[in-house]
Amino acid sequence: MITSVSNEKVKHIVRLQKKASARQEENCFLVEGVKMAQELPVERLVLAYASESFAARPEQKALCRRLRAETVADHVLAAMSDTRTPQGILAVVRRRELAAQEVWQGKAPLVLVLERLQDPGNLGTILRTAEGAGVTGVLLSEDCVDLYNPKVIRSTMGSIYRLPAACAANLPEAVARMRAAGLCTYAAHLKGEKAYDEEDYRGGAAFLIGNEGAGLSPQLAAASDRYIRIPMAGQVESLNAAVAAAVLTYEANRQRRKGKSGG
Amino acid sequence: MITSVSNEKVKHIVRLQKKASARQEENCFLVEGVKMAQELPVERLVLAYASESFAARPEQKALCRRLRAETVADHVLAAMSDTRTPQGILAVVRRRELAAQEVWQGKAPLVLVLERLQDPGNLGTILRTAEGAGVTGVLLSEDCVDLYNPKVIRSTMGSIYRLPAACAANLPEAVARMRAAGLCTYAAHLKGEKAYDEEDYRGGAAFLIGNEGAGLSPQLAAASDRYIRIPMAGQVESLNAAVAAAVLTYEANRQRRKGKSGG
Repeated sequence: MITSVSNEKVKHIVRLQKKASARQEENCFLVEGVKMAQELPVERLVLAYASESFAARPEQKALCRRLRAETVADHVLAAMSDTRTPQGILAVVRRRELAAQEVWQGKAPLVLVLERLQDPGNLGTILRTAEGAGVTGVLLSEDCVDLYNPKVIRSTMGSIYRLPAACAANLPEAVARMRAAGLCTYAAHLKGEKAYDEEDYRGGAAFLIGNEGAGLSPQLAAASDRYIRIPMAGQVESLNAAVAAAVLTYEANRQRRKGKSGG
Repeated sequence: MITSVSNEKVKHIVRLQKKASARQEENCFLVEGVKMAQELPVERLVLAYASESFAARPEQKALCRRLRAETVADHVLAAMSDTRTPQGILAVVRRRELAAQEVWQGKAPLVLVLERLQDPGNLGTILRTAEGAGVTGVLLSEDCVDLYNPKVIRSTMGSIYRLPAACAANLPEAVARMRAAGLCTYAAHLKGEKAYDEEDYRGGAAFLIGNEGAGLSPQLAAASDRYIRIPMAGQVESLNAAVAAAVLTYEANRQRRKGKSGG
């Protein structure tokens, strides 16, 4: 059992928690907690650690065995953890990153294109919501917050394992390729002429969502087929990015379930 | 100009930032930043402070005058501020709290009932979204995170000034009164039989949203007219509370704009 926080294995995990570049180099990310550990696809497991008291709980023995978790002292796991109240289990998971065009494959894909999102909680919530709404893939600009940031991972509540995602150096170019592949691309924009619920999202569709403060860049907005807007009552000027993504993707979900458009 | 952080006025603001009980006693809350200062209804202003460099900017003179802001040294404003990069303006605002029944008054009210929400960012985002979706009032349980927590205020982006809100000691009892007043009350619940978009929200309606982790308490859910669920694809078990509130309130908004129900 590892009992010292100066053990090299501990330092390795701390580095992965703190440095996006270290995670990138090792093509991995970290997950923490029971739910994330349970949902972990074991073929992507790199290694796992459990705290002494976690490993001793009868109801967690099977989970520790499945992840072949190495036991560490409780204070060592606390040092490895990114959270204030660690649950006692932590794992390193191999990434499964896709080429951009893989996120818009298949019949009637529903894609989210995210430009320069900065808030990790927002990005994680968007991925969780996207899976729930039936989004088939997510494309991120390279200047988004790191998809594998521990706060993003936590907020996805497991969707990080399942939702196909890719990064693109040039989003306008990627959007042009989506259009060539037959998707209709919609920029969520305050200048949209039509309300979001007046379009038909039952065919291949992509929603473009911009930075929390600044919205979509003019270059990316101009690359889309249409601008759509979410009507806002009162004096609200814009919605939170995760809220906008939820409203749009659930309208697509509604239309696809009911087999009729908003019109 | 105040130049010392040990000035009593500075200590007063710091106390208001940190202590919900102090804000409660003085029946006030704090706002920071240009946008919040601009939207502040001046009849509810208690007092305001601007940093020396903020007050010196020609484009901010009118705002400082409108709020009768007292000038303080930049480092003093930084000490008063709840944010890491203060914008230089801060104000104390009088609350306008309502009695519970005032949030469901009027013709076809659209109400959000929030039980035991714990995340201040979530609560603020819900208020911002609610105003945008045309919600007419919000009712919170007393064990929600403090509505006047600085992080809540910030996340509302100004909706805190405008959205009628009240706290209730006994939410099930308040929901019973809403029903007696003619509202149809919907519990967002994983056990909902009908999808949320199969109901008609054009009359008086209230959505009940529960705690981030635990959902609605059985007591509150049982007090509602109906359970509704938000369909979820993939392996998603639940949605973020702010996302659920957004999906529900924007469906009501859509039906009310179009003059037809989901059906």
